[in-house]
Amino acid sequence: MRVLMVGDIVGKPGRNAFTQVAARMKQEGQVDFIIANGENAASGRGPTPEIANALLNAGADVVTLGDHAWDAKEMVAGIDLEERIIRPANFPKGAPGKGFVRVDTPEGPLVVMQLICRVFMQPGYDCPFQMADRMLNGQLGSDSVIFVDVHGEASSERMAMGRYLDGRVSAVFGTHTHCQTSDETVFEKGTAYITDLGMTGPKDSILGREVEPVVAKFLTGVPHKFDVAKGKPTLEGAIVDVDMKTGKAHSIERIRIEI
Amino acid sequence: MRVLMVGDIVGKPGRNAFTQVAARMKQEGQVDFIIANGENAASGRGPTPEIANALLNAGADVVTLGDHAWDAKEMVAGIDLEERIIRPANFPKGAPGKGFVRVDTPEGPLVVMQLICRVFMQPGYDCPFQMADRMLNGQLGSDSVIFVDVHGEASSERMAMGRYLDGRVSAVFGTHTHCQTSDETVFEKGTAYITDLGMTGPKDSILGREVEPVVAKFLTGVPHKFDVAKGKPTLEGAIVDVDMKTGKAHSIERIRIEI
Amino acid sequence: MRVLMVGDIVGKPGRNAFTQVAARMKQEGQVDFIIANGENAASGRGPTPEIANALLNAGADVVTLGDHAWDAKEMVAGIDLEERIIRPANFPKGAPGKGFVRVDTPEGPLVVMQLICRVFMQPGYDCPFQMADRMLNGQLGSDSVIFVDVHGEASSERMAMGRYLDGRVSAVFGTHTHCQTSDETVFEKGTAYITDLGMTGPKDSILGREVEPVVAKFLTGVPHKFDVAKGKPTLEGAIVDVDMKTGKAHSIERIRIEI
Amino acid sequence: MRVLMVGDIVGKPGRNAFTQVAARMKQEGQVDFIIANGENAASGRGPTPEIANALLNAGADVVTLGDHAWDAKEMVAGIDLEERIIRPANFPKGAPGKGFVRVDTPEGPLVVMQLICRVFMQPGYDCPFQMADRMLNGQLGSDSVIFVDVHGEASSERMAMGRYLDGRVSAVFGTHTHCQTSDETVFEKGTAYITDLGMTGPKDSILGREVEPVVAKFLTGVPHKFDVAKGKPTLEGAIVDVDMKTGKAHSIERIRIEI
Ligand SMILES: [Fe+2]
Ligand SMILES: [Fe+2]
Ligand SMILES: [Fe+2]
Ligand SMILES: [Fe+2]
Ligand SMILES: [Fe+2]
Ligand SMILES: [Fe+2]
Ligand SMILES: [Fe+2]
Ligand SMILES: [Fe+2]
Repeated sequence: MRVLMVGDIVGKPGRNAFTQVAARMKQEGQVDFIIANGENAASGRGPTPEIANALLNAGADVVTLGDHAWDAKEMVAGIDLEERIIRPANFPKGAPGKGFVRVDTPEGPLVVMQLICRVFMQPGYDCPFQMADRMLNGQLGSDSVIFVDVHGEASSERMAMGRYLDGRVSAVFGTHTHCQTSDETVFEKGTAYITDLGMTGPKDSILGREVEPVVAKFLTGVPHKFDVAKGKPTLEGAIVDVDMKTGKAHSIERIRIEI
Repeated sequence: MRVLMVGDIVGKPGRNAFTQVAARMKQEGQVDFIIANGENAASGRGPTPEIANALLNAGADVVTLGDHAWDAKEMVAGIDLEERIIRPANFPKGAPGKGFVRVDTPEGPLVVMQLICRVFMQPGYDCPFQMADRMLNGQLGSDSVIFVDVHGEASSERMAMGRYLDGRVSAVFGTHTHCQTSDETVFEKGTAYITDLGMTGPKDSILGREVEPVVAKFLTGVPHKFDVAKGKPTLEGAIVDVDMKTGKAHSIERIRIEI
Repeated sequence: MRVLMVGDIVGKPGRNAFTQVAARMKQEGQVDFIIANGENAASGRGPTPEIANALLNAGADVVTLGDHAWDAKEMVAGIDLEERIIRPANFPKGAPGKGFVRVDTPEGPLVVMQLICRVFMQPGYDCPFQMADRMLNGQLGSDSVIFVDVHGEASSERMAMGRYLDGRVSAVFGTHTHCQTSDETVFEKGTAYITDLGMTGPKDSILGREVEPVVAKFLTGVPHKFDVAKGKPTLEGAIVDVDMKTGKAHSIERIRIEI
Repeated sequence: MRVLMVGDIVGKPGRNAFTQVAARMKQEGQVDFIIANGENAASGRGPTPEIANALLNAGADVVTLGDHAWDAKEMVAGIDLEERIIRPANFPKGAPGKGFVRVDTPEGPLVVMQLICRVFMQPGYDCPFQMADRMLNGQLGSDSVIFVDVHGEASSERMAMGRYLDGRVSAVFGTHTHCQTSDETVFEKGTAYITDLGMTGPKDSILGREVEPVVAKFLTGVPHKFDVAKGKPTLEGAIVDVDMKTGKAHSIERIRIEI
């Protein structure tokens, strides 16, 4: 089965790019399953349930979030209504929502799980390594096809997670920095890995935002409105070909599609 | 001359406490000059010029700000209209406002300067130590009575600033943590010092905010509204007795006054 | 029972101060039990087991550590040999040592527990609030006299812990910043609290270190050796008078004793 | 002229890879000029002058450093002896060494400059944007061929620098994360850009280090020795073809060469 993993979708341009590309790739049979990171889908901020549901309707099978999960208050109340919208599993115990979902496909169950890193991130998350152990040895003990969105800043921590889960899950893919890395690979024991999928949104920008206000903020320290940029959007991500019996990845291919 | 330095004023309860105490202390001749940190004066956030001006009208001779300087957009546009409202001198070059003010008193000029620290703070500030040197060797080269608000988180950096400026200014007093320290002292060369003045606001709180939402945020990671607490306010700060000829501090006395 | 809690002991001057003061106070019957933070007891770095044991021999009933716990490799191997040396309970699951100890006293058992904060600290600690709940509802479920060393940087997080544990433990006292706060109090439900005990070491210093190299590091960015300062040491801490039946604190008194 | 920019060289394996590849590429005429980031060249730590000079002897025309510049004390004393070893220009004023070097080539002068970012980095650096302005409007006012190593963690800050310098320098290339990005491009006004060149060292590793101790550190919090990994090294970087008259970049090509 071919699984498309889509990097952080930013604002309306990102949603439009996603809708076009996802629909076409599914229709043409290029991919069978789509995991989309939606943590910036609403004007660059965290989505409402409506916006996340629109991504599901546009072809995503699962939407993952991240540190922006609760930007929209509606998501705090609403995440529990749709199990295909997930947030990091190692959020504090009291948080709403769930950190994984098991989706039935014609070829068997496929699990998507999200973990959030701690280096250079806001304090307050449980250990992602211990949480991975707990889940893989517990609720996911008999699953073999598992895709892990590791949402984080530092390349060291995400790479460490990829190595730690090698042979235990099908793929570990990074999100959050909006900057695609070129290190996609299948590790020795069969886990596909990439440090960051990149971004789905206007390429002529700083991480999806207009250039001028971001530069002005660095120069003056005075807050500026960081509007989503207006240029043509690009979809970035990667496609993993996974063996649904063994859960091993055959290949990972990095993609960047301009609209 | 006796100078009262007032710790971060938080919201309406803090403004009320300040108004009552400042008026009384000036009337009764207990203090001659008041420096008030106003960075949280508006519902715990940065003040508008109106709110900062209200502190001046209530008895403050100078209002200092901090990292919350630009919380209110109106302050970005308005700070240049009132020279007695100052922001950290080591803000980036492009920032509005000024980092010091020289006020004429019956006994001669008194300078108030603010510096912001960098350890555990948002990135983007110039070096406070180099800025201090530049100002003391430049624009303030012939001033002898200088009060420095060092706004920061780490005790090490503020203590280092106090030691660095010992004998070169009249007082170095910390603001920002809302937690009064007990280390007030006059250093060997005549500079009064305290790591943090504390807070002016509701004492039965977490740094001036309601307890429950702050604890809930730590436990769940979900954003909560941090309203200013409702209990009785306290004014915290310190009084320095300064020799207006030499600029040396005779004494520093920590205060906490419940309303 | 009167319990002395001693702020971070720094280097040899700090150890000397501790030895003198602790011995005298116990002999004179001023205090019955001593909890000493020893995380900087070896030249300002984390102690070996030998140095921590020397503090026990000098009068400490329990030694707590902190983020510097593993500075000395010997402690990684040796902490499990002495149960009265404890490290933060919310260290990762794989860490050696324990996060609390129950000590028998003539008046009944007294528990000392340590928690480490996360704001402005290195990433990698479990949630201190959840850990407190787990312990108080679990292993410490039938203890009534519990002293909690909350080791951290931000005043907000330590204050939140104090409020969160009010009525559930005898005392919450902060360590780590080496800067004593003036906010000691007994909360409404009987828990004694202070945000930071301060430091036990040479007062004429920056957090116990020589002034010049610390200032030079700030000015140049070039590493400097931060030797422990040579001046006369001071012991800082607080004394809590606790009811051994109910676990409630009668009073908390901040102390600073120059040698 | 074709300029090879080489990502952070890690330890002996990285130095070996560099020596082999650089020598061959220069001999074969594939590149004319080599800029090598050497901040981790000594067992993963900052190099001594000897090690940095060995990189120059092996084919580097300029060696840049980074936050690890002063890991080796010898570099603090020695950097001023060799102008082709540079450190970030926005290090504090009191730091030894220089932030740029102008090298004569057969086709005219070529400037290499380094800047260090501030987001998620240790505090204590001057503003890299203002420093860039000061240098480009000052000492480098009449240079047209300028290569800028922007050493940093956050993709936003490095991208902002690339955009800010577009049309003013020949190339802006990131170093520090050891993770190559796939976003190489020539911006509209002729500046080549890539967020991170990647690493030169053992690929089967975590940023050049052995996998097990890094994972163990994340799991236990206990310090581990992070030895440089032993597998086959890879050289990562990019080649920019620059017009020596105008300073404009014709192209940028990302490279990864396994030894
Ligand atoms: Fe994110
Ligand atoms: Fe994102
Ligand atoms: Fe404040
Ligand atoms: Fe502040
Ligand atoms: Fe500590
Ligand atoms: Fe300490
Ligand atoms: Fe670096
Ligand atoms: Fe590096």
